[in-house]
Amino acid sequence: MTNSLTSPASIAVVGASKTPGKIGYSVVNNLIQSGYKGKIYPVNPKEKEILGLPSFASVAAIPESAETAIFAVPAKKVLEAAAECGQKGVKNLVVLTAGFKEMGREGLELEKKFMSICREYGMRMLGPNCVGFLDTHTPVNATFLKGFPGQGEIAFISQSGAMLAAILDWSQTAGIGYSKIYSLGNKADLNEVDCIAEAAADPNTKVILCYIEDVACGPDFLRVVSEVTKKKPVVILKSGTSQAGAQAASSHTGALAGSDLAYNIAFKRCGVLRAYSMSELFDLAIAFVNQPVPKGKKVAIVTNSGGPGIIATDKVEANGLAMARFEKETIEDLRLNLPPEAGIYNPVDVLGDAKADRFKFALEKVLSDQNVDSVAVLLCPVAVTQPLETARAVIELNQAYPAKPLVAAYMGGPALAEGAKLLSQNGIPCFTMPEPAIAALAGMSTYAGFIEPAPAAEKKNDFKPDLKTVKAVFYDVKRDHRLVLLGSEAAEVIDAYGITAAATSLSQSPDEAAAMADKMGYPVVLKVASPKILHKTDVGGVKIGVSTPEQVKSAYVGIMENVHRYLPKVVPHGVEIQKMLPKGIELIVGMSRDVQFGPMIGFGLGGIYVNLLKDVSFRLAHNISPGEISEMIAETKAYTMMKGYRGDKPVDIDAVSEVIRRVAMLAVDFPEIMEIDVNPVFAYEKGVAALDVKITLS
Amino acid sequence: MTNSLTSPASIAVVGASKTPGKIGYSVVNNLIQSGYKGKIYPVNPKEKEILGLPSFASVAAIPESAETAIFAVPAKKVLEAAAECGQKGVKNLVVLTAGFKEMGREGLELEKKFMSICREYGMRMLGPNCVGFLDTHTPVNATFLKGFPGQGEIAFISQSGAMLAAILDWSQTAGIGYSKIYSLGNKADLNEVDCIAEAAADPNTKVILCYIEDVACGPDFLRVVSEVTKKKPVVILKSGTSQAGAQAASSHTGALAGSDLAYNIAFKRCGVLRAYSMSELFDLAIAFVNQPVPKGKKVAIVTNSGGPGIIATDKVEANGLAMARFEKETIEDLRLNLPPEAGIYNPVDVLGDAKADRFKFALEKVLSDQNVDSVAVLLCPVAVTQPLETARAVIELNQAYPAKPLVAAYMGGPALAEGAKLLSQNGIPCFTMPEPAIAALAGMSTYAGFIEPAPAAEKKNDFKPDLKTVKAVFYDVKRDHRLVLLGSEAAEVIDAYGITAAATSLSQSPDEAAAMADKMGYPVVLKVASPKILHKTDVGGVKIGVSTPEQVKSAYVGIMENVHRYLPKVVPHGVEIQKMLPKGIELIVGMSRDVQFGPMIGFGLGGIYVNLLKDVSFRLAHNISPGEISEMIAETKAYTMMKGYRGDKPVDIDAVSEVIRRVAMLAVDFPEIMEIDVNPVFAYEKGVAALDVKITLS
Repeated sequence: MTNSLTSPASIAVVGASKTPGKIGYSVVNNLIQSGYKGKIYPVNPKEKEILGLPSFASVAAIPESAETAIFAVPAKKVLEAAAECGQKGVKNLVVLTAGFKEMGREGLELEKKFMSICREYGMRMLGPNCVGFLDTHTPVNATFLKGFPGQGEIAFISQSGAMLAAILDWSQTAGIGYSKIYSLGNKADLNEVDCIAEAAADPNTKVILCYIEDVACGPDFLRVVSEVTKKKPVVILKSGTSQAGAQAASSHTGALAGSDLAYNIAFKRCGVLRAYSMSELFDLAIAFVNQPVPKGKKVAIVTNSGGPGIIATDKVEANGLAMARFEKETIEDLRLNLPPEAGIYNPVDVLGDAKADRFKFALEKVLSDQNVDSVAVLLCPVAVTQPLETARAVIELNQAYPAKPLVAAYMGGPALAEGAKLLSQNGIPCFTMPEPAIAALAGMSTYAGFIEPAPAAEKKNDFKPDLKTVKAVFYDVKRDHRLVLLGSEAAEVIDAYGITAAATSLSQSPDEAAAMADKMGYPVVLKVASPKILHKTDVGGVKIGVSTPEQVKSAYVGIMENVHRYLPKVVPHGVEIQKMLPKGIELIVGMSRDVQFGPMIGFGLGGIYVNLLKDVSFRLAHNISPGEISEMIAETKAYTMMKGYRGDKPVDIDAVSEVIRRVAMLAVDFPEIMEIDVNPVFAYEKGVAALDVKITLS
Repeated sequence: MTNSLTSPASIAVVGASKTPGKIGYSVVNNLIQSGYKGKIYPVNPKEKEILGLPSFASVAAIPESAETAIFAVPAKKVLEAAAECGQKGVKNLVVLTAGFKEMGREGLELEKKFMSICREYGMRMLGPNCVGFLDTHTPVNATFLKGFPGQGEIAFISQSGAMLAAILDWSQTAGIGYSKIYSLGNKADLNEVDCIAEAAADPNTKVILCYIEDVACGPDFLRVVSEVTKKKPVVILKSGTSQAGAQAASSHTGALAGSDLAYNIAFKRCGVLRAYSMSELFDLAIAFVNQPVPKGKKVAIVTNSGGPGIIATDKVEANGLAMARFEKETIEDLRLNLPPEAGIYNPVDVLGDAKADRFKFALEKVLSDQNVDSVAVLLCPVAVTQPLETARAVIELNQAYPAKPLVAAYMGGPALAEGAKLLSQNGIPCFTMPEPAIAALAGMSTYAGFIEPAPAAEKKNDFKPDLKTVKAVFYDVKRDHRLVLLGSEAAEVIDAYGITAAATSLSQSPDEAAAMADKMGYPVVLKVASPKILHKTDVGGVKIGVSTPEQVKSAYVGIMENVHRYLPKVVPHGVEIQKMLPKGIELIVGMSRDVQFGPMIGFGLGGIYVNLLKDVSFRLAHNISPGEISEMIAETKAYTMMKGYRGDKPVDIDAVSEVIRRVAMLAVDFPEIMEIDVNPVFAYEKGVAALDVKITLS
């Protein structure tokens, strides 16, 4: 994207109109009303003049070139107009016209043709089917919406045009200003990543908000947004979290929604805060715009009423924050200077008869306490309360302690309105209820965690997998027109990545089986080898604890007979012989591939109850860091067992981490792998063993 | 409580004052300003007249009797004033005075003396340390707060006085009216249950809201509120959910907070909706006051914008509701009459260019669909939107379909204000964002589930436990000054309740052990018998799979030697011999006693990982119904296994249910039992067996 999308030198409006109510009228009118300083060229062959500006018969007829062209013509005219723009040297198209991908197959074809013209001339496109963009600092209002917001430091990027209309209107009531607003429409070319990048580079933008239904390109998103969040917070409301919601999404903009889990781990990977409601999105924005990011999770609460103090304390814990424990001196100072009934621990209850001076005293004490990272002030309107004077004190202290974020809940209506307004005007996020005040601190604290410098350089990863072996196995599998690897093949593959699999060999006769068992040592396990049999135990296809050559032979025959009885049409590849291993903690390490964000690695409690217990945490496989691996292990209940549960000795967590890392490597190295299940992995005091490995290709 | 608390014939104000700003002034002034029709008697020996009313030197000096006396005197004067009121025949005291339990031990003593005077004269007391009460229909404002709310059908009961002040002030902005408001203060006498009962009996009250930090008496609460919720919804915001929050609560009104889990199951038992934020509390109230309760969970959404439609769909699922699937005719009608790009499935997207008539058409279609239980309308302000006309259509249809609740989200500000106001005035709950609209429908639907008639009469429970055996065991345990039962004793106790425990006998010599094992049959398990040894395996105190008399004798000796080596100071009671049973699904049935709500029964996955997996659901033991038992089983992951997991045969769920029911009976019959753990219970295809039973007395 050129830097000029939101600050073009000149704008042509293709399909400009003289008729109020028409989009082509609204756009020209909005451009003029916004005080846009560049040239505006209305294009309409039927008019001589529109809203006081000379109208041109075509883009070609404009004497100079226009940097940006806004399209408000019907869909059937866009191809011609686009070619004209291209010849004229227009750089950016903003396409308000609907009737493309969102209308089905025919629309999609038209959109593709449109895009190929843009590519031919090197033009970038916002939309189609969007409501435009605006920038309050340029200033320019290239939308057909009513109203131009006040200047502010929030950039808002939306995949829903109507929602932009709603937000703009609502912002007037809420008194929220913006730096830039983008409507993405169908995202045929420019998408959320381009707009996030542009907003990130904008000195007038302090926080970036998005409403999206999908991301256009997972890898781009990860690469670009990871960098942006190091400098500016990005908060995203991503809809389509539910099964039904995702259906609604795909019938909406024709978007193919990735799974919600993949979005969660991708957002986490690149430091994006995820909002789960529209209120949350804006509550966070207001906090980020006005207050510093806290140094840690420790919150102090100052209140003139016990009830709200308890409610806020509940939310501190529920949101993953912690109540600050004050220094001895702070408590002593509060004890000496507040009335005896006051609450001097956290929450500090300055009592119903507190005037501004008592609030100020308590606030100053907790702000100056080194154990306090952020502060929430809660005020109820009781008889003697001084909402305005208290607001002044809060503002003064916020300036005196600029490193500690401060939020307020002024709980009431008319009696507090003046004070609340003063707080908002002076950058103190002020809510009506205590809950969103704490939620805002929590969001800021999560972001603070994202931008913490990574721990010191981690040990170099110099493991070199045996790629040749893996390629050879996959070659055989593909030649057989199979997608599922045999157990012995899968074991060979992970062995090539240095993951110790229980020794497994494929035998094709009772005698061969016995010979192999002799070689690996007893006891052994026999399992039928067939990619067509998913649940081997159910068909009598598994014998465990086989201890002599004779037993091996008879087990071989028994398995083949069982399988033939249950599944007469299946011809097994043979029987796999595996050395029986001592039981360790049963874990699973797996991989599944998301259409947007690529391979995701899962780890958790394994065994046959893995789907029941659902104790699996996920991360993206690409560039997974040792820190992420430690985190994903620590998130599971499996970790409690691994550390040594109820007197058991701890298992080899380093070895488990290494399995996770190497399965991730394997998934990244071979994009043809669709799924991997290493389940169970036995973890021992020293080392691990992969008991069963399933690998499916795509 | 007499019916007259909120409609007394006459009121004395003890400690009335002429000085604005004093509580004694505010109360008299509020009484007058509220238009109270009864007699008002200011009592202040220093004044002749207060706010135009004659002032009396004492309560005794009032010519008639006053039904209610409001105390605004200092704490040190209350005892004398109370006695005077008692002698005069005053029925109710409303005590605004602070300085009682909330101030510590001395205050608590004073409060007790105060209460004993009230009891002596049969007076009831609201408070002390409260802000009073008001009733907009009487009308009477017996508080010292600023402002008197408009009439409405919401009763609000609050344990926090300052929060009442906040709510009253905020309600002016939000346009919310009330029937009654009660401030509970220290709850020395009248508490939330009394106020809920009074509000339930009030024809002007349609929904009851509470903010509480604890309940005064669990059994009263359960008994009374269960009945109330059959007629009127009760929504409670109970704070102190977090560890830190509970600490703040106990240092606040000196309340002893029961555990949060107990509150959850108690609220569920008696049909109380629990709100988790102040916004939620009021959003629900507005919905209940204005709209009917839905017949089911199926929601239809009509929107003029895709984005909000998806967001709302997400919330439908997240809140446990379901998206309605329309009848074929509905879909056909929508297809024929809406533009081709419109969404005709659920959510119905009438598109950005929809005027009121198109909204009306779609709304009428979905309201008339029998698969739709409730409807949410979402409107964004795009160019042609007609917010006011659409509001009129919504109101008309709400009246035409009075059985289906309808809520709206008018997403915007000034452009929609008039329409939103019209909706609110006509009883359509109207929100700014889609999320709270769906949450309100969800709350109503949950309440609908509470008031559904219970399923037809369930099979009679005619089981008679062997109480004599249990009493005899407890007698012995108490005589030994023990609290923990031996395994064999615990087995005897549950056996007396018809729960099959694995046969267990206590032996005190190797020979006795062998004789017992011979009698019960091999193999057996030997466990050291000592209430002082919690983890028997860790000290070598358990031997499993013992198969001959010789092995039994040597195991006996081995166990005693091991225990002596690890714990030289412990003298075991002997060794328990238990028949070894085949392995079934490992479950836990347990009981712990809550200080407020009595015994709670837990059920879930058992074995040594019970604390790790945390798959345990709880219910109150008292009067637990077969329906509740089925519900609690179905909530667990254990249930998935019990139904037959991955090809396993299902186990005997009836037998498991019976264990839960009988453990509940035992807990109710013997209040001296503090805790029961039956873990594991093995569940088989036919029947169950209790392997290990721990019972602790208090």
